[in-house]
Amino acid sequence: MKQKLFYTILIASFLLSGTAHYSGLNTTLQFVLCCIAVIFAAGFMGKATESVAHYAGERMGGFLNATFGNAAELIIAIFLVRDGLHDMVKASITGSIIGNMLLVLGLSVFLGGLKYKVQNFNVMLASHNASLMLLAVVALIVPAIFAKSFTFKEMDMLSTIVAVILIIAYGLWLLFSMVTHKKELSDVSARDPEDHAHTLNWSKGKSIFYLVLATVMVAFISEWLVGTLEHFTETFGLSELFVGAFLIAIIGNAAEHSAAVFLAMKNKIGAAVEIAIGSSLQVALFVAPVLVIVSHFMGDPMNIVFTLYELAAIAIAAVLARSISQDGATNWYEGFLLLVVYVILGIAFFLV
Amino acid sequence: MKQKLFYTILIASFLLSGTAHYSGLNTTLQFVLCCIAVIFAAGFMGKATESVAHYAGERMGGFLNATFGNAAELIIAIFLVRDGLHDMVKASITGSIIGNMLLVLGLSVFLGGLKYKVQNFNVMLASHNASLMLLAVVALIVPAIFAKSFTFKEMDMLSTIVAVILIIAYGLWLLFSMVTHKKELSDVSARDPEDHAHTLNWSKGKSIFYLVLATVMVAFISEWLVGTLEHFTETFGLSELFVGAFLIAIIGNAAEHSAAVFLAMKNKIGAAVEIAIGSSLQVALFVAPVLVIVSHFMGDPMNIVFTLYELAAIAIAAVLARSISQDGATNWYEGFLLLVVYVILGIAFFLV
Amino acid sequence: MKQKLFYTILIASFLLSGTAHYSGLNTTLQFVLCCIAVIFAAGFMGKATESVAHYAGERMGGFLNATFGNAAELIIAIFLVRDGLHDMVKASITGSIIGNMLLVLGLSVFLGGLKYKVQNFNVMLASHNASLMLLAVVALIVPAIFAKSFTFKEMDMLSTIVAVILIIAYGLWLLFSMVTHKKELSDVSARDPEDHAHTLNWSKGKSIFYLVLATVMVAFISEWLVGTLEHFTETFGLSELFVGAFLIAIIGNAAEHSAAVFLAMKNKIGAAVEIAIGSSLQVALFVAPVLVIVSHFMGDPMNIVFTLYELAAIAIAAVLARSISQDGATNWYEGFLLLVVYVILGIAFFLV
Repeated sequence: MKQKLFYTILIASFLLSGTAHYSGLNTTLQFVLCCIAVIFAAGFMGKATESVAHYAGERMGGFLNATFGNAAELIIAIFLVRDGLHDMVKASITGSIIGNMLLVLGLSVFLGGLKYKVQNFNVMLASHNASLMLLAVVALIVPAIFAKSFTFKEMDMLSTIVAVILIIAYGLWLLFSMVTHKKELSDVSARDPEDHAHTLNWSKGKSIFYLVLATVMVAFISEWLVGTLEHFTETFGLSELFVGAFLIAIIGNAAEHSAAVFLAMKNKIGAAVEIAIGSSLQVALFVAPVLVIVSHFMGDPMNIVFTLYELAAIAIAAVLARSISQDGATNWYEGFLLLVVYVILGIAFFLV
Repeated sequence: MKQKLFYTILIASFLLSGTAHYSGLNTTLQFVLCCIAVIFAAGFMGKATESVAHYAGERMGGFLNATFGNAAELIIAIFLVRDGLHDMVKASITGSIIGNMLLVLGLSVFLGGLKYKVQNFNVMLASHNASLMLLAVVALIVPAIFAKSFTFKEMDMLSTIVAVILIIAYGLWLLFSMVTHKKELSDVSARDPEDHAHTLNWSKGKSIFYLVLATVMVAFISEWLVGTLEHFTETFGLSELFVGAFLIAIIGNAAEHSAAVFLAMKNKIGAAVEIAIGSSLQVALFVAPVLVIVSHFMGDPMNIVFTLYELAAIAIAAVLARSISQDGATNWYEGFLLLVVYVILGIAFFLV
Repeated sequence: MKQKLFYTILIASFLLSGTAHYSGLNTTLQFVLCCIAVIFAAGFMGKATESVAHYAGERMGGFLNATFGNAAELIIAIFLVRDGLHDMVKASITGSIIGNMLLVLGLSVFLGGLKYKVQNFNVMLASHNASLMLLAVVALIVPAIFAKSFTFKEMDMLSTIVAVILIIAYGLWLLFSMVTHKKELSDVSARDPEDHAHTLNWSKGKSIFYLVLATVMVAFISEWLVGTLEHFTETFGLSELFVGAFLIAIIGNAAEHSAAVFLAMKNKIGAAVEIAIGSSLQVALFVAPVLVIVSHFMGDPMNIVFTLYELAAIAIAAVLARSISQDGATNWYEGFLLLVVYVILGIAFFLV
C-alpha cells in the first residue's frame, strides 16, 4: 500500500515538473514541483542503491551512488563552462566538495548517531580517504599560491598538468580500492539482523536498472530546478558565489544527501561515509580536472585557481572531515560539529 | 604538622595581599605577596579538586576545575570589555588558549613523564577534544578571512551569530560528554594503589565547599595581581600584546597550572589533560563568545576578529596539542616539545 | 662474481670522476661520470648500512645512515654560506626536507608496496616523528609570520634563539629515542627469514668502516657533481630556486634515496621510513640551525626566514607524510600519492 503511494507520487511529480518546465509555467510553481519531485526521486535512488549494495557490497554501492550522483553535476557544469561562467563553475565545485563533506556527512552522522550510540566503519578506508582528500587540497592550493608569479600561459600549463595528474591519481585509486586492496578496505559495520526483512525483492539486474533510471530522473529534475534559480537569485538579491556554492550544490547533491542519510539510519554508516567523502573526492579529483581539460576544447581555457574564500572553505572542510572520520567511529555530536561549520561557512558566503 | 603550616601560610598570604591591595602599599611588595598567595591558593584548589574528583570521577573533577578556573578570567575580562580594552581582551583570550594547550599541558606531560615512563588516557576523549578545538579554530579563523570584504555592520552580525553558535555547541558538548556518552569518555588511567593513603578525609559536601572557596580566593588574588601589572609594564617597557597574552594569561591560569601538574605527577594524566584542553575549549567556545555578546549590552560591540599573530599562535597550539594527545599516551619528550613551542611564541610576541 | 664486478665499477667510476674533476675535463663528461659513480657509491652505502643495521638494530642503522648522509650536505652548505649564497642554501634546505619526505619516502613506500601488499612499522615512532616535524614547521613558520613587524636586528636575534632551541630539541630527541624510550620505539617490521642468506659476512668493525668509507666517497662525488651543475643551469636556463630545491637536493640525497628503497624492497620499511623522515628532521632541526649559527662566525649572519613558496612546500610535505605514516602501515598507493605531490611541487618551482 505504502509502496504504491510512493511510486505514484514519484511518477506524478516527475511528469508534472517536466510539463511545468517545458510549458514555461510560473517559476515559483516550477520550483515547488521540482522540489517535491527531487525528494521522491532521491528516495527512489536511495532504495535502488541499497538494493545494488546488497548484491555488490557496501563500498561498490557507495561508489556507484557517488558516480551516478556526480554524472548529473558534471553535465550541468559542462554547460556552464560552454557559456564561459568559470566563476560559477568553481563556486559550484567548491560547494559540492564542502556540501558533501560537511552537510551530507554531518546529517548522516548526526541522524545515524541519534539512533545508534556509536557507529563504526573501516579505519583503513577512512585513513586513505583522508590522504586522498589532502592530495586534492594540495592540488588546488599549489596553483593558487604560485598564481601571482605566473603568466597567464604558465598558469594554463600548470592547470592542465595538474588536471592530468589528478585524473591519473583517481584512476589508480579505483584500481587500488577495487582491485589490489579490495579486501583490506571492506566494511566492518554491524549488519542489522532485521535488514533482510526490509529488503525489496529486486533482482540484481532490476536493481541496477532502477539505479540508472533514478539517476536519470534526478539529473533531469536537477536541471529544471537550477533553471528556476536565476529567477530566485534576482528576486531575493543573492550573490552568485552563494548561489553556486550553496543552492546549486545542495540541490545538485540532493540524491547523495538522502541516500547517505537513509543508509546511516539503517546503521550502514560505512556506505554513508563512502557516498559523502567519495563524492567529494570524485568532484575534486575527477569532475574539476575534466572540466579544466574540456574547457580547452571549447576555446576558452579555464584554469584551476580558486579564490581564497573557496580554498579556505575546502581546506577547513577537509581537515574537519578527516579529524572526525579518522578513528572509524562516529556519534551524533561529531555530526553536529560538521553541520555547525557548514552553517558558519554558509553565513560567511551569504554575507560576502 | 605539614598540613597546619600549609593552611597557616595560605590564610596569612591571602589576608596580607588583600591588605596590601586595599591600603595601596608599594606595588612591588603587592606583587610579591600576591605571587606567594596565588601559589598557596592554587595548591589548595588542587587538593580540593582531587578530593571532588575522588567522588565525582576524574573527568567531572577536571570539568569543575576548568569551570571554576575560568570563572575568574571571565569576570576580569568583562571589566576589561566595559573599559573598551578590546585588544587586551583578545590578547588575554589568545594567551589563555595557548597557555593552557602549550604551557599547562606541556608542564603536566613533561613533569608527569619524568616520573612515569608512559602515561595513558582515554583516546576517544582526546579525539573529541581535538575535533572541538578544530571547531574553535575554524570559528575564529573564518571571520578573520572574510573581514576585508565585510562592512562593520556585517562583521558585527557574523560575530554575534558565530558567538551564539559556539555557545550552543559548548552546551551540547556538555550534554554529550556528561549525559549521552559519559561512559565511553570515562578514564582509563592506571590508579595508584597508594592513592587512598594520601587522600584527605574530606566529605563530599566539604570537598565541594573547599573547591568553591579556593576558586573565590584565586579570583580575588588574580585581580589584585593583575592590578599591579600595569606598573610593571611601564617600568620594564613591555608591549600590551605580550602582557595580555603571556603575563595575564599565566597568572590568570595559575590555578589550572598547578592543579594539572599536581594530578599529572600522581599519574592522573587523564584529569590533567582534561583541565588543560578543557580549559582552552571553555575559553574559546564559551568565554570568548559570551564576551562578544556581553559587549553588545555595554554599548560598544566587540567583534570576534583576531589578529594574524593571535590566530597563528592559536592554530599552532591546537595542531601541536592535537598531534601529541591523539594517541592517548604521553611522555616527557612530548611535554618538552609543547614547552619549546610556547617559548618560541613567547619570544616572538615579546619582540613584536 | 657479481660482487666483484660491482666493486670494480664502484672504484673505477670514483677514480674516473675524481680525475675528470681535477683535470677540468668537459663538463658534460664530468656530469655523466659523477652520476654513474654516485649510483654505485650509494649502492655500497646501502649495503654497509644494512650490515651495520644487522648489528645495531634497524633504528640505529637508520639514524647512522641519516647522519652520514647529511654530513655531506652540511659541508656543502657551509661552503655556500661562506660565499654569501643564503637563498641557495635555504632552497637546498627546503629541497632536502621535501625530497626526503616526498621523493625518498614515496619511492620506498611505492616500490616496497609493489612487492609486499601491506608493510608495517612502529606506530609510536611514526607519531613522534610527526610531532617533531610539526615542531620544525612551527619553528620555520613563526619567524616568517613575524618578519614584517621586526627590525633586521630583532629578526637576527629571534633566528639565533630559535636555532639554539632547535639544536637542544634535537639533542634531547636523541636522548629520548636512543636512551630513555629506546625499547618503546623499536621496530616491529616482519623480518624476512631468507634475510640472513643475503647478508654479507662483514664483521661489526668492518661494517662500520665501510659505512664511513661509503659516506666519504658519496660526499666527494656529490661535491664534484654540484660543481658541474652551474654549467647546466646556464645552458638550460633553470632558476636558482629550482636548481637548489630539486637538482642539488636530489643528488645530495642520492645515498638516502637508494639506501631507503633498497631496505623497503627487503620489507624493512621501518628502517626506510627512519632514513627518509629522520633525514628530513635532521636537516630541519640540526643542519639548518647550525648553518644559522655558523653564519654569525663568518661575518654575514643568515636569518631563518624562508620564502612563502618554500614554507608552503615544507608544510605540505610534512602534513602529507604525517597523514600517510600515522597508521604505521603503508601500501603502493600511498607511495604514489607522495610522488604525485612531489611532481606537482616540482613543476610549480620549475615554472616560477
